[in-house]
Amino acid sequence: MEASSPTTDRLEAFSDGVFAVAATLLVLNLKPGSHGTLAHRLASQWPHYATYVVSFLTIGIIWLNHHSQFNRIERPDRTLMVLNLFLLLFVTLTAFPTGLLADNLRSGSNAHVAAAFYAATMLAMSIAFFSLYVWAARQRLFAGWIDDRQAAYLLRRNGAGLLVYAVAIGLAFISAIVSLALGGAVAIFYLLPGRRAETA
Amino acid sequence: MEASSPTTDRLEAFSDGVFAVAATLLVLNLKPGSHGTLAHRLASQWPHYATYVVSFLTIGIIWLNHHSQFNRIERPDRTLMVLNLFLLLFVTLTAFPTGLLADNLRSGSNAHVAAAFYAATMLAMSIAFFSLYVWAARQRLFAGWIDDRQAAYLLRRNGAGLLVYAVAIGLAFISAIVSLALGGAVAIFYLLPGRRAETA
Amino acid sequence: MEASSPTTDRLEAFSDGVFAVAATLLVLNLKPGSHGTLAHRLASQWPHYATYVVSFLTIGIIWLNHHSQFNRIERPDRTLMVLNLFLLLFVTLTAFPTGLLADNLRSGSNAHVAAAFYAATMLAMSIAFFSLYVWAARQRLFAGWIDDRQAAYLLRRNGAGLLVYAVAIGLAFISAIVSLALGGAVAIFYLLPGRRAETA
Amino acid sequence: MEASSPTTDRLEAFSDGVFAVAATLLVLNLKPGSHGTLAHRLASQWPHYATYVVSFLTIGIIWLNHHSQFNRIERPDRTLMVLNLFLLLFVTLTAFPTGLLADNLRSGSNAHVAAAFYAATMLAMSIAFFSLYVWAARQRLFAGWIDDRQAAYLLRRNGAGLLVYAVAIGLAFISAIVSLALGGAVAIFYLLPGRRAETA
Repeated sequence: MEASSPTTDRLEAFSDGVFAVAATLLVLNLKPGSHGTLAHRLASQWPHYATYVVSFLTIGIIWLNHHSQFNRIERPDRTLMVLNLFLLLFVTLTAFPTGLLADNLRSGSNAHVAAAFYAATMLAMSIAFFSLYVWAARQRLFAGWIDDRQAAYLLRRNGAGLLVYAVAIGLAFISAIVSLALGGAVAIFYLLPGRRAETA
Repeated sequence: MEASSPTTDRLEAFSDGVFAVAATLLVLNLKPGSHGTLAHRLASQWPHYATYVVSFLTIGIIWLNHHSQFNRIERPDRTLMVLNLFLLLFVTLTAFPTGLLADNLRSGSNAHVAAAFYAATMLAMSIAFFSLYVWAARQRLFAGWIDDRQAAYLLRRNGAGLLVYAVAIGLAFISAIVSLALGGAVAIFYLLPGRRAETA
Repeated sequence: MEASSPTTDRLEAFSDGVFAVAATLLVLNLKPGSHGTLAHRLASQWPHYATYVVSFLTIGIIWLNHHSQFNRIERPDRTLMVLNLFLLLFVTLTAFPTGLLADNLRSGSNAHVAAAFYAATMLAMSIAFFSLYVWAARQRLFAGWIDDRQAAYLLRRNGAGLLVYAVAIGLAFISAIVSLALGGAVAIFYLLPGRRAETA
Repeated sequence: MEASSPTTDRLEAFSDGVFAVAATLLVLNLKPGSHGTLAHRLASQWPHYATYVVSFLTIGIIWLNHHSQFNRIERPDRTLMVLNLFLLLFVTLTAFPTGLLADNLRSGSNAHVAAAFYAATMLAMSIAFFSLYVWAARQRLFAGWIDDRQAAYLLRRNGAGLLVYAVAIGLAFISAIVSLALGGAVAIFYLLPGRRAETA
């Protein structure tokens, strides 16, 4: 009993560290372009800024929701920790598809592949997060103060992202920019407060 | 009620992680120059050292003030968390304009653009921090032991930076070095202890 | 007495930070290949993905076990802290042999050397972790609720990895890929829950 | 009163983050050499491994001592926080002189400059740490359970490093390797347990 509380704490400390580093490493993708004046070289890099903001907010939101969720979990089990590790594996990966999409957003057919790869990473991240939620709900790891209606609401809310990211993968082959914009829309949607339970 | 205290803790843990990584990543901008002996190549890099110190201290101070402020907040709400995310987005960005200014500080017209971009990032960071403060004050999220006079003082103290960074953007087009020096002066000003409330 | 609990806390906080950064830095090794379409360039990088996953999971598992272990330690002594520092030295190193193996996995004789170097780093990490365990057990630093049978079980479980990594070093000179796969198998083995004591 | 304990906590959390990132970033300096077989290219990089180990252990030790010290501090004041920021500035810097020394250890006169710069960074770090200690002692920020004899002992122990690093700067101009070795010797000296008070 005594041991379970520090367990949650360290799980969160490690996760917070990974979220923080993954979000901060994104800056390493930013570089000025190579032609013209500095003003021109900075302006030409808008795909890097756009992807930076979408990726940063996405990691930020996953952190926010991770935080809401683990707040309610009293006794994490080993499976939850392993699922959490898979979530972090994709969070950590984010800088790679982000840089790739920024570098290729204006390069014809490569843009489609880069955007699909980007959306696929987001989807993988969401699936990992969703599994975490489903496992915790099934094993009744949540503290008592969450009722069935709240659980169903959270399931819908967490699940919605999955669907949208799957759509974003398809959209990538029509327009890379629209696919990225959809990723940005998901981030903004989750930034807005949900119902009561979500804000706890 | 029980949940609110770990909430602040994790908000701070994640923020501390981002502050720490953002401050430490600045070192990746440091590289010896490419001509002459090592001593000469090291000496020629003074713009990198100057921007490194100003950026490091600026992040350090925002951390210090972030810390003073969240110490007083008892129940962060979702909006505060989102505003905090925007603050961290700009903190994370710092390494980019820092490297840019270091690389261009001695390159004529590009120096002006780089210094303006640098000061603009600082301004964005300050605006985000200021919004955080105003929101917390308006929603009465601060603990009881802050009175109206203290609140007004903190408002003035936090707001002063905004004005100075706006001036630094303008100054950048006259002298990049003076603009950077002004940024350094802001950092030193905030390092000095404020009145009682600030040091709590 | 009062001081011993924050001591463990900070030891864990610093270690968690190193684990988190070391795991996240692995992403910097990922780069698209240089020939053909982006899809082809991404596909050609499978050695980078394979080594990324194995290294990430290995660090993740060491973190999980580190966490289980320090949960049971009540009063860390200075020797334990120094041993922990040696463990972290090798954890931190991981990105280097990981990138090396990814770059050389398909390059004939260099592949053998890279795989042996990779497995040797894993072995060094395991030896450091094992020493930590043996020291804590001998000095009776564990809390009372671990009995002799559990201790013997943990000794066997922690020691098994040593043997397998030693085998992986030898295997590297026959097949670099099989050696890497063995490293992956160790990671998966430790991801699976052990007996009761392990999951505490 | 209530606020002072979280204050120490966050100061430590931020510092731990910086220590952890600074120590882990050192790995980015490691790269295989460019001539011959991989085995040869790895072996030729011994200056990188040597500097990596010395820098990692130095950061580790400063962390250990930082930790011992802040454990005893009950009420950090703003000055202490600012001094701590200066310490972290030099800790963060470490990767730069480390890479520089590794790259130049075998390059004649540049080696002397690189080794002197390296030792100077260590000296700056020690001075910052020493100031922290002296300030805390003078302001009586330490908890009651440290007596005058312990304080004098800690002063001597913390001060000794200053002297040795100053010697290492001079030695750098005779032999870069001996200067680096002296830095390594300091690290090992501090790894060994001191008297009682140090191990608390």
